[in-house]
Amino acid sequence: MTSAHPAYDQLAADCARLHRFAHLQSIAGWDQAANMPPKGAPARAAAMAEMAALLHRLQTDPAWPERLARANDEPLDDWQQANLREMHRRWTQADALPESLVQAGALAAARCEHAWRTQRPANDWRGFLETFRPVLAIAREEAALLAARSGLAKYDALMDRFEPGMTAAEVDRVFGAVRQWLPGLIAQVRERQSRDSVLVPRGPFPMAAQRGLSERAMRLLGFDFEAGRLDVSTHPFSGGVPEDVRLTTRFRDDEFMQSLMSTIHETGHGRYEQMRPRDWLEQPVSQARSMAVHESQSLAFEMQLARSRAFVGLLAPHIAATFGAQPALEADNLWRLFTRVAPGLIRVDADELTYPAHIILRYEIERALIEGEIEAEDIPALWDEKMAALLGLDTRGNFTDGPLQDVHWAEGLFGYFPCYTLGAMYAAQWFAAMRRATPDLDARIAAGDLAPVFEWLRERVWLPASRYETAELAQRASGEALNPAHFRAHLEARYLGV
Amino acid sequence: MTSAHPAYDQLAADCARLHRFAHLQSIAGWDQAANMPPKGAPARAAAMAEMAALLHRLQTDPAWPERLARANDEPLDDWQQANLREMHRRWTQADALPESLVQAGALAAARCEHAWRTQRPANDWRGFLETFRPVLAIAREEAALLAARSGLAKYDALMDRFEPGMTAAEVDRVFGAVRQWLPGLIAQVRERQSRDSVLVPRGPFPMAAQRGLSERAMRLLGFDFEAGRLDVSTHPFSGGVPEDVRLTTRFRDDEFMQSLMSTIHETGHGRYEQMRPRDWLEQPVSQARSMAVHESQSLAFEMQLARSRAFVGLLAPHIAATFGAQPALEADNLWRLFTRVAPGLIRVDADELTYPAHIILRYEIERALIEGEIEAEDIPALWDEKMAALLGLDTRGNFTDGPLQDVHWAEGLFGYFPCYTLGAMYAAQWFAAMRRATPDLDARIAAGDLAPVFEWLRERVWLPASRYETAELAQRASGEALNPAHFRAHLEARYLGV
Repeated sequence: MTSAHPAYDQLAADCARLHRFAHLQSIAGWDQAANMPPKGAPARAAAMAEMAALLHRLQTDPAWPERLARANDEPLDDWQQANLREMHRRWTQADALPESLVQAGALAAARCEHAWRTQRPANDWRGFLETFRPVLAIAREEAALLAARSGLAKYDALMDRFEPGMTAAEVDRVFGAVRQWLPGLIAQVRERQSRDSVLVPRGPFPMAAQRGLSERAMRLLGFDFEAGRLDVSTHPFSGGVPEDVRLTTRFRDDEFMQSLMSTIHETGHGRYEQMRPRDWLEQPVSQARSMAVHESQSLAFEMQLARSRAFVGLLAPHIAATFGAQPALEADNLWRLFTRVAPGLIRVDADELTYPAHIILRYEIERALIEGEIEAEDIPALWDEKMAALLGLDTRGNFTDGPLQDVHWAEGLFGYFPCYTLGAMYAAQWFAAMRRATPDLDARIAAGDLAPVFEWLRERVWLPASRYETAELAQRASGEALNPAHFRAHLEARYLGV
Repeated sequence: MTSAHPAYDQLAADCARLHRFAHLQSIAGWDQAANMPPKGAPARAAAMAEMAALLHRLQTDPAWPERLARANDEPLDDWQQANLREMHRRWTQADALPESLVQAGALAAARCEHAWRTQRPANDWRGFLETFRPVLAIAREEAALLAARSGLAKYDALMDRFEPGMTAAEVDRVFGAVRQWLPGLIAQVRERQSRDSVLVPRGPFPMAAQRGLSERAMRLLGFDFEAGRLDVSTHPFSGGVPEDVRLTTRFRDDEFMQSLMSTIHETGHGRYEQMRPRDWLEQPVSQARSMAVHESQSLAFEMQLARSRAFVGLLAPHIAATFGAQPALEADNLWRLFTRVAPGLIRVDADELTYPAHIILRYEIERALIEGEIEAEDIPALWDEKMAALLGLDTRGNFTDGPLQDVHWAEGLFGYFPCYTLGAMYAAQWFAAMRRATPDLDARIAAGDLAPVFEWLRERVWLPASRYETAELAQRASGEALNPAHFRAHLEARYLGV
C-alpha cells in the first residue's frame, strides 16, 4: 500500500529517530544532575556535546526543506497538519544557526556555568563578567541570525524558542500593568499579614520522612510512579521522558515546606509530561505547547492548588502524620505559612506575590542586553535600581544574592524568564475557567476530590499538547487569550480576601 | 603542521566519536537496570535500538577499509599500532554482520529476555523454546557470517568477540583436565569440611548497614567514589564508563555474605575500568583486554583476595562493627563460611570450587548448539546428564533451576560462559606470579597492606589494557601463557591445605 503522504511519513520517521536520541540525551542529563560523581564530568560533557551535534545535524537535514514543502501539499488530517507546523518551526530555528555557533555557544556556556559555581559564593562579579561576555556575544549573534530568519525582533526571536508567538510588545503589555499594581498590593498584603500570628514548626524534619511525605503528595496529585521517579539534586527540576519522568527535589532537615512545595511544583511539570498524547509521543506535536504553558502546569499545582486553603486541609494530616502533631502543623497555621508574603533577594525562595517582581526585573535587563541597549557591566546598577523600586530592597555590592543568583544567563538562556510569570498568569486563567465550570471547586478539593482539576487540565492542556498554537489553546481552554486580569484577581482574592 | 599519520588520525577521531555515543548507551543501560520504572521500558528499548543501529553504522563506515589500509603504512608508535590492530578487529567483526541481522537479533533477544522473566518462575520450558528458537537461529547465522569472514570455526568466531584469540580447542584442553580432577576434588573437600563446625550468623542484617559495609569494603579495595558509585539492581553488574563506573549489588536482610562478595567481585571489574590508561580512554586500545581478563580482575578480588584467610581477617572487624559482634562473625568462622563447598543447582550461588562445573556444562551445550550438533529441545536432557556427572545433582523437570536460570542464551549471548572459568584460571595465575614477586604476600595482606596486589595488577593488567594480545599480556605479566595448573594448585592449597 502506498501512503497518501510519503513526504510527511519520511519527516515523521526522521522525527521519531530524533526523539529516540533525545531520549538518551534527556536521561543522561538527569543522571548528570542526580547521580554523576565529579570525575565523570569531562567525559560526560564530551558525550553530551557529541549528541547535541548529532541532533543539530539531524534537525538541519538538507533534505528537509523540500520534504516540508512537499508534505505541505499532501492530504493530512488536523493532527498531522499541526505536527507539520511544529516540524517546520523546529527546522527553521535549527537551520538558522550554523553548527559551529551552536558548538561555540555550548562550550562558552559550559565554561561560564562551571566558573559561576565558584564565582557566585565568592561574590566575584568581575570574574563572572569575563566568562559571561563570550556567552552574551554568542547569544546576541544567535538572536541576530534567528531574527533575520524569522523577521522578529532579536529578543523576540530568542523568546520564540521557548514561547512561540510571544513578543516583547505583548510581555510589556501584561508586565507593564503588573509593574503598576504590584508594589501597592505587596504593601497592602504585608500590612494585613503583620496582624497575623503565625507559629513556626519545630524540627528537625528527617530527610527520609520528608521523602515519604513528598511521595505521598505526588500520589495525591496523580503522579504515576510506574512511569517516573523522585530523586535528589542540587536544583530541583523535571526531566526524563514522558514514559519515564524524572523529578528531583532537595531536602534540608531544618525545613520541610520549601522542599514539599518544590516537589509539588515539579509534579505539575511531571504530570503534563506523563499525560502527553500517547499516540504522538515520538512527534513534535506531542511536545508541551510552550514553556509558559509548562510553567502554568507547575504553578497550577503549586500556587493555584497546593497553596489553596482547601488543599492545605488535605495536606495537613499527612504532614502531622509525618512529623508528629504540633500546633504549627494545623491546617490554618500551615496555610498562613504557605501564603506568607515577604520581599527577599532570592527569586527561587520568593513567595507567590513578590515573585513577579523578580521576573520583571530580569526580563527588562535581559531584553536590553540582547537588543544591545546595555552591556554586561551595566547589570548591577540596573539590578539595584529595580530591586529598590519593585521590592524596596538594597542589593548594592551583593552580587551573590543579586545578578549572580541564577544560572540562566551563565548558561546563555535568554528569553526564558518571562515564561515563569506568564505561566503564573495562565495558571490563574485556567483556575478561573475551572471555577466557572465547577462552581463548588474548592469544596470538592477540600473533600479530597481533585478530579475536576485533573480532568479540566487533561482535556484542555495535557492531551492537546501542541495541537493548537498557544493563543488558540488558551482560547479553546478558557474562552479567551492570555488575560492577566485573572492573575491579579487571584492574588487579591487569596491575599486580601476580596 | 601536517600529521605524519593522517589516516590513523581520522580513524582515531571516528573512534572518539563512537566512544562518546557508547558513553550515553552505557549510562542509559545502567539506568535501565538501576532506576527505570516499568512503563519506561518500551521507549527505552526503542532509544537503545536506535543507538545500537547508529553505532553499528559508524563502526561499519565504508571509508574504513581504505583508511585502515593506509594507516597500516603510516609511521605509528607501539600504542598506535596496537590501537590500529584493535580498530581493525572491531571493524572486521561489525562489518561481517549486516545491520538487518543485528537489528533482528536485538529484537529477538529483547523479546526472549522479556518472556524469560515470566517463563523462568513458571518453569515453562515449552514456552521458552518458542521465543528462544529465533534467537538461536540468528546466533547461528551470525556465527556462520563471522566464521566465513575470519576463517574460524563457528563457535570460535562467537567466542572471539569476547575472548579474542581463544578457540574451542584451547578451551577443551584446559576444561578437559578440570573435568577429570574436579569431581574428585569436590568429594575430597566435602569430606574434609564435613568435620568442620561452622556457626551461622544471626540476622537480621539491615540493608542500610549492608550498604555501608559494602562501601567500606570498596574503599578498602581502592575503588574511587569520585569516579563511580554503588547502586542496587536485580542482577549485580559493573557498568558506566571508566571515568564514572557504576557498580550494582543487591541486598537481602536475612543474609549479607553473598551481597558483600558480589560487591567485591564487581569492585574488581570496576577498578580495572577506573584504571584503564587515561591518555587512551576514547580509543579501542584502552578497552579491557578481553572478558576472561575482565573476569580475572573480579575473581582476583573476590576469590583470590577476599576469600583468603588474610583478607577475611581484615574484613571481620568491619563486619562485626556493622552488625554487632557475635561468635559467627569472628574471622576463623567467617573464613570457613566464605570457603564452604556445597554443590548446588544455581551457578551464581555456586562456591569457588563447584563453579567451574556449571561453566563446563554450559560451554559444552552452547558449543554443540552453535555448531548445529544439537537442537534447543536437546538442552534439558544434556543438562540433567551433565549435572549428574559433574555435581551429582538431579535436575530433571526443574527447568527454573536448570537451563532457565541464566539470561545469557535468552539474550543471544553465546561464547561468553567460558570466560568466567578462564578468568578464574588467569586470576590464580596472577596471584601465583604475585607470590613469586612478593613471597610474604599473605602477611602483607593480613597487615592491611594491599599495595603489592594493586601495584602488580595496575602495572601488568590495568595500564596495559589492550596494548598486547592476551597471550602476550599473560606472558609479560606472569612469564607464561594461560596455565590452568595454577588454578588447581590454588584450589588444593585453599581447600585441602596442600
